[in-house]
Amino acid sequence: YGLAETENQIGVATGLAYTTVGGDTLQIEVSLSAGSGKLQLTGKLGDVMKESAQTALSYVRSKADEFGIDASFYENKDIHIHVPEGAVPKDGPSAGITIVTALVSALSKRPIKREIGMTGEVTLRGRVLPIGGLKEKTLSAHRAGLTTIICPKDNERDIEDIPESVREVLTFHFVSDAQEVLQLALEETKK
Amino acid sequence: YGLAETENQIGVATGLAYTTVGGDTLQIEVSLSAGSGKLQLTGKLGDVMKESAQTALSYVRSKADEFGIDASFYENKDIHIHVPEGAVPKDGPSAGITIVTALVSALSKRPIKREIGMTGEVTLRGRVLPIGGLKEKTLSAHRAGLTTIICPKDNERDIEDIPESVREVLTFHFVSDAQEVLQLALEETKK
Amino acid sequence: YGLAETENQIGVATGLAYTTVGGDTLQIEVSLSAGSGKLQLTGKLGDVMKESAQTALSYVRSKADEFGIDASFYENKDIHIHVPEGAVPKDGPSAGITIVTALVSALSKRPIKREIGMTGEVTLRGRVLPIGGLKEKTLSAHRAGLTTIICPKDNERDIEDIPESVREVLTFHFVSDAQEVLQLALEETKK
Amino acid sequence: YGLAETENQIGVATGLAYTTVGGDTLQIEVSLSAGSGKLQLTGKLGDVMKESAQTALSYVRSKADEFGIDASFYENKDIHIHVPEGAVPKDGPSAGITIVTALVSALSKRPIKREIGMTGEVTLRGRVLPIGGLKEKTLSAHRAGLTTIICPKDNERDIEDIPESVREVLTFHFVSDAQEVLQLALEETKK
Amino acid sequence: YGLAETENQIGVATGLAYTTVGGDTLQIEVSLSAGSGKLQLTGKLGDVMKESAQTALSYVRSKADEFGIDASFYENKDIHIHVPEGAVPKDGPSAGITIVTALVSALSKRPIKREIGMTGEVTLRGRVLPIGGLKEKTLSAHRAGLTTIICPKDNERDIEDIPESVREVLTFHFVSDAQEVLQLALEETKK
Amino acid sequence: YGLAETENQIGVATGLAYTTVGGDTLQIEVSLSAGSGKLQLTGKLGDVMKESAQTALSYVRSKADEFGIDASFYENKDIHIHVPEGAVPKDGPSAGITIVTALVSALSKRPIKREIGMTGEVTLRGRVLPIGGLKEKTLSAHRAGLTTIICPKDNERDIEDIPESVREVLTFHFVSDAQEVLQLALEETKK
Ligand SMILES: [Ca+2]
Ligand SMILES: [Ca+2]
Ligand SMILES: [Ca+2]
Ligand SMILES: [Ca+2]
Ligand SMILES: [Ca+2]
Ligand SMILES: [Ca+2]
Ligand SMILES: [Ca+2]
Ligand SMILES: [Ca+2]
Ligand SMILES: [Ca+2]
Ligand SMILES: [Ca+2]
Ligand SMILES: [Ca+2]
Ligand SMILES: [Ca+2]
Repeated sequence: YGLAETENQIGVATGLAYTTVGGDTLQIEVSLSAGSGKLQLTGKLGDVMKESAQTALSYVRSKADEFGIDASFYENKDIHIHVPEGAVPKDGPSAGITIVTALVSALSKRPIKREIGMTGEVTLRGRVLPIGGLKEKTLSAHRAGLTTIICPKDNERDIEDIPESVREVLTFHFVSDAQEVLQLALEETKK
Repeated sequence: YGLAETENQIGVATGLAYTTVGGDTLQIEVSLSAGSGKLQLTGKLGDVMKESAQTALSYVRSKADEFGIDASFYENKDIHIHVPEGAVPKDGPSAGITIVTALVSALSKRPIKREIGMTGEVTLRGRVLPIGGLKEKTLSAHRAGLTTIICPKDNERDIEDIPESVREVLTFHFVSDAQEVLQLALEETKK
Repeated sequence: YGLAETENQIGVATGLAYTTVGGDTLQIEVSLSAGSGKLQLTGKLGDVMKESAQTALSYVRSKADEFGIDASFYENKDIHIHVPEGAVPKDGPSAGITIVTALVSALSKRPIKREIGMTGEVTLRGRVLPIGGLKEKTLSAHRAGLTTIICPKDNERDIEDIPESVREVLTFHFVSDAQEVLQLALEETKK
Repeated sequence: YGLAETENQIGVATGLAYTTVGGDTLQIEVSLSAGSGKLQLTGKLGDVMKESAQTALSYVRSKADEFGIDASFYENKDIHIHVPEGAVPKDGPSAGITIVTALVSALSKRPIKREIGMTGEVTLRGRVLPIGGLKEKTLSAHRAGLTTIICPKDNERDIEDIPESVREVLTFHFVSDAQEVLQLALEETKK
Repeated sequence: YGLAETENQIGVATGLAYTTVGGDTLQIEVSLSAGSGKLQLTGKLGDVMKESAQTALSYVRSKADEFGIDASFYENKDIHIHVPEGAVPKDGPSAGITIVTALVSALSKRPIKREIGMTGEVTLRGRVLPIGGLKEKTLSAHRAGLTTIICPKDNERDIEDIPESVREVLTFHFVSDAQEVLQLALEETKK
Repeated sequence: YGLAETENQIGVATGLAYTTVGGDTLQIEVSLSAGSGKLQLTGKLGDVMKESAQTALSYVRSKADEFGIDASFYENKDIHIHVPEGAVPKDGPSAGITIVTALVSALSKRPIKREIGMTGEVTLRGRVLPIGGLKEKTLSAHRAGLTTIICPKDNERDIEDIPESVREVLTFHFVSDAQEVLQLALEETKK
């Protein structure tokens, strides 16, 4: 588990995690059902990661019009964000832009390009803040077959830490706003 | 307790558990009552297993149409998932596909084939993720009189660990999507 | 406190408990009031016993028609289950069938035969699972003046542990389904 | 604080408590406001005492008609039960009948006879169960100027522990049902 | 901070606190907004002080008519009680009458006389119970420029502990009922 | 992260924090969405800081008319206050006036002057209380490129602790009421 998907999908984005035993990839899954605006967060997520998901959701709500999303989704949908594998503890704010991407994909029905992995904290206004462990995350993305990495502008200096052999076969995008992430990661047209 | 049922039943699926003292079988019971969409989880379940049940339920809700289930069940039914024996602590994500099966059976009124035991984590999209302890689980299923085992595709390599005498008398199905589980485990027609 | 009642009552069933200092009898009291479906559990009950009560209630709700109970009780009644003595901690799943009996009695207004004590875990489908401490429970029931014991089929082998002098003056019923309990313990006609 | 009131009051009953430093009297205050059935419990009450109050309230609700109380109070009143002094921890089930008395007084507007102190656990059906520390409680009631003691029938044997000089100037009532308490403690007519 | 206000204000009463490092004054602030009866308590308040605020509020609700307050405030106002300074832990029941005064001032729009400091536990019926640390509280009130002290009748004997030089320049009111406090502390007319 | 913004923004105010390792700047972000008056607080905030935000919000609600804000926002908006960076614990009451400013900016659509940093506890009535660490906070504001500091009147004496070289290039405003803060920090006209 952790290999790139075999086709572009809706509501599933690939994040890059950094743990005590190295980098890893993780899937952020978003599922929508008819409901009343409840948010469910599962996958053994720590408090910081849960707050990161709430922040990502508020950002998407506040920009619904710009993202071509019917702003009333928060009244008539229940949103479930799950991060397999369910027994592995996960925490930290660095999945912020990945959660934004999975949410906008699910709400707009635009598929996510499957070759992309991403990492970056997101603020309530969509600013992308730097993260740790870029080297380890990048190596793990490479191992998982990803070819494009989206990461924070403020991590640009960390790219020198990545072995040149890996750096050369990957495409890097350094972003400072979550809207850049969406332009890079989402297909233009709805499925 | 733990022997195969004497006839196919609705809303009760047999899972395979792996504990410090070896494998065991467990029953996932689902009961529906007229209500307002409350989910109750009992049986001394740990947090990961509770999240696994919530993930299974969201998966079923999001696929209600495909499963021939009236999607409005979440508004007019209360759902209780119980795992006897009530004093025995249970945890982990590996009952995921068993919970999906019990839920779809209860909601569609299609009985579950009683000779089947199953194990596998399920994601929000229905992907089946690998589990641990396949050997111990299989031996316990055999002892309990089960003849068919459903387990994750990614556990296929672990089958070599199971004694040949047991392997020969059991039928194995290796699956990567929860819909395969439902096709294998549920009777075609409603009761 | 703990002696058999002097007449058959509605909504009070006698259970048999097993503690570190031996067996004991306990009363499961159920009170209904006009309300909106709230369930209250008091009497210093542990988590397993609370889940046992929730399981018993879901079982009764799902079988309301068969038990001659108006299924809408869950919308217009509040249910309070109390187990005196309020300062004594109680836990475990073995009061399951006792709770079912007290609930059905209160909801159907059929009195419970006062000479009966009972013990057994109940599942969501009404299966009766075995319990521990049958010998100690039986001796305590005898001391309290009870003459009939209902216990799980799977505990039938434990009867040899009970002193013959006690065994001879008690009537035992071994059951595998909660409906058998109700047939044995409830009076035919409503009060 | 702790001396008998100077006139009969509505919604305030005097209980007898037993602490590590001896007996004490306490006031159970009940206040009703227009509301929606919320129950508030204050006064640094432990879990057993809170459950005791919930049990007392359910008992009163289930007997509302017999007590001349409009059963709909639970929908249009908020109930606050407070036990001064707010910084002193209190626990245990023995204030049960005192809480019943204060509740029925507040709901029926019948004053409570100010010379009475009481102690006894109450069950959901109104049975009065024995308590500990009768001697210490009685001495403290005497010191506080009370002249009549209501206590559980099953504590009748403990009266021999009380010094004869005190026993002679107090009137004792031994009760087994909460309705006896109400007949003894409440004035006949509403204020 | 802690000096007497420069003019009489609505919804702010001055209490006297007693801490391990001596006496202190504190402000009880009450703010009302259009709402639905929610009560918010902030200022790092301990459980006893929170219960004291709930008791004060229930007292005010039950006496709304006598205090010239529209009793429906509990349905159409949200009430926030805050005690600056927000980082300083506060606890105990002795702010009871101060909270009552701030609440009635905010609800009736009658200003509180700024030269008054007060201390005393309040019960659900408005009885004023004695408090500790009267000497230290009084000295601190004097330092803060207050000239009038309201305290419980049952603390009258403690006045001898206060240095005569301070006692002479302060006016003391000893009260046994919260209504006396309101008559002393509130201006007659609304602002 | 932490440098002054490049243009005046709505709903983002710059606060000054004081940690064990020195001063720091932080952004208070406020996001509004169509909703029902829910308040969400994220950014690993401690209890005192959460209460500070609730106090700030109640102050703004109670002054809505004076601030040119439609008082009904509390019924039809959800409010999310986030403080990046999400993994850094934050606590204390000194962001009070910063939260007030961000809230009023978001609700009135008046941008906040980007060159201003601020610190000060706020009470329910808008009084500004003194804070600690003014020297460290000021140095950090200077490093981050801010040119104007708003701080509590009661901290005026602490200005002598700040190196003269820094003091000379910064403009200081000492305030005692939150309305002064808003006049200093908000642009006159809505965006
Ligand atoms: Ca992994
Ligand atoms: Ca680096
Ligand atoms: Ca087992
Ligand atoms: Ca293997
Ligand atoms: Ca007993
Ligand atoms: Ca045996
Ligand atoms: Ca006392
Ligand atoms: Ca004795
Ligand atoms: Ca102070
Ligand atoms: Ca003294
Ligand atoms: Ca920083
Ligand atoms: Ca200084």
